Amino acid sequence: MSHPLVECIPNFSEGRRQDVIAAIADEVRRTSGARLLDVQADGSHNRCVITFVGSLTAVKAAALGAARRAVELINMTTHRGEHPRLGAVDVIPLVPISGVTMDECVTAARDLGRQLWESLRVPVYFYAEAATRPQRRWLPDIRAGEYEGLVQKMADPSWAPDVGAPTPHPTAGATVVGARRPLIAYNINLTTTDVEVAKTIARTVRERGGGLMHVQAMGVVSESGRAQVSMNLLDYAATSLARAVEVVRTEAARYAVEIEDSEVVGIIPLDAVADVARACLRLKNFRREQILEARLIE
Amino acid sequence: MSHPLVECIPNFSEGRRQDVIAAIADEVRRTSGARLLDVQADGSHNRCVITFVGSLTAVKAAALGAARRAVELINMTTHRGEHPRLGAVDVIPLVPISGVTMDECVTAARDLGRQLWESLRVPVYFYAEAATRPQRRWLPDIRAGEYEGLVQKMADPSWAPDVGAPTPHPTAGATVVGARRPLIAYNINLTTTDVEVAKTIARTVRERGGGLMHVQAMGVVSESGRAQVSMNLLDYAATSLARAVEVVRTEAARYAVEIEDSEVVGIIPLDAVADVARACLRLKNFRREQILEARLIE
Repeated sequence: MSHPLVECIPNFSEGRRQDVIAAIADEVRRTSGARLLDVQADGSHNRCVITFVGSLTAVKAAALGAARRAVELINMTTHRGEHPRLGAVDVIPLVPISGVTMDECVTAARDLGRQLWESLRVPVYFYAEAATRPQRRWLPDIRAGEYEGLVQKMADPSWAPDVGAPTPHPTAGATVVGARRPLIAYNINLTTTDVEVAKTIARTVRERGGGLMHVQAMGVVSESGRAQVSMNLLDYAATSLARAVEVVRTEAARYAVEIEDSEVVGIIPLDAVADVARACLRLKNFRREQILEARLIE
Repeated sequence: MSHPLVECIPNFSEGRRQDVIAAIADEVRRTSGARLLDVQADGSHNRCVITFVGSLTAVKAAALGAARRAVELINMTTHRGEHPRLGAVDVIPLVPISGVTMDECVTAARDLGRQLWESLRVPVYFYAEAATRPQRRWLPDIRAGEYEGLVQKMADPSWAPDVGAPTPHPTAGATVVGARRPLIAYNINLTTTDVEVAKTIARTVRERGGGLMHVQAMGVVSESGRAQVSMNLLDYAATSLARAVEVVRTEAARYAVEIEDSEVVGIIPLDAVADVARACLRLKNFRREQILEARLIE
């Protein structure tokens, strides 16, 4: 039996003061049932991203604890950084990994948003799958105007927060909370150095070009000088890694180009790897529990 | 970081008395650091197989505890069953899963064998990778003659045990301890009902037929009536699942037959699944630690 597993990847507006970043991460470390996986800070963005996993209950508690510390320690009135941001606790996405539904994550995101308002007095917008209306689905739309434009934005009734008063927290601004599918960052390198081929394939493959649903793609030059189709798969259960590869392979063949190799950037859920094996081997009746290590997850 | 993980799959000569089977399994359950995964009993074989994992230290302790109970509770002088067996604790294989080498498992198997003799007075043979000479590599060779033939077999100097006196334990016989790679049981179903095609492919593919190293294969009829190549992959790191499939596909094409689907029977290590993804997607630089769940294993 594998336990319900949720990933949480909050972004905080501090990327320089190591003591502040450590204090925020410590709140996750000391939360029973939450497991801290990664802390990444970017000085020029002046922003850090903390990755942790656990049950819904543990993840909510860890996120609230970390947010409390961030609100205490970060002052947005003097914050400068290259990355767009709305508040000290800029965004908190919840991601269902296994044994938990998207609906449950949406409910948890809404709970967490209410707690942020009730205990920290930070107004909250819900985004992605937790959005309360279509125009709040995309993070960049909510973030437009940034912290500095919040007073004016929140005075507009159409941008009243989903939870809390329509005025920003004086030093912590506002926070965006939501639920989304795990994202897989995946690059396919081609047997050509002609980046135009990669760009053309990317335009055909991606959702925005009428291609595969839940796929973002662009053509770039790889580190080794190859043309590369760089993709984000936003819902691997609907549009799998294996399907994306097949479509890129077919499109590349039009230009007498092949797939040289590919790479997963960062983290990938076990179920996505198992799906590749299922597709590649035409496996039938293959269950996650047949993977030895899947039975050992705490 | 994932912890060193060893699998242990001891076979005991009791498949009918549930209280005895439970008492043996309880020894594993109560060993700190060992995790009981499965208990399977077969009444007609009069034999049970207990699967557990843990660190080398935990696995050795759990195996010794379970063996002590089995020696107490099983009397081979009255044991009857269809499966060949040499003793109450018939065989104890140690299998490296991750973060541990085969050499370490061989050393652990030798330690465990000495403990079985010193604390339980059961003489021990080492087999598979832990064998002390080539003729003791294969379990069926060691088991030939079974419990009933042990007094005579052990009197033959070439069959003196590796540890202990050359006479069987009066009620527990002898035990075989060793280390081997994880075995993957894998069946490929063909788009034909002609079992002769599967048999011919199996003969070509398997090591014994001059085919792939570390592959056992036979042609059978599947439950749904298809011709099936039924395989054991004895060392997936050397001969991968993906390679076995490619060779079967190529051979099948000679008879205008294709692969319909395939199935993994029982348990498969995570690394073997990751290897399929690597081969199928031509993944470069893909690390086990990129799989989210691999970082959560206790």
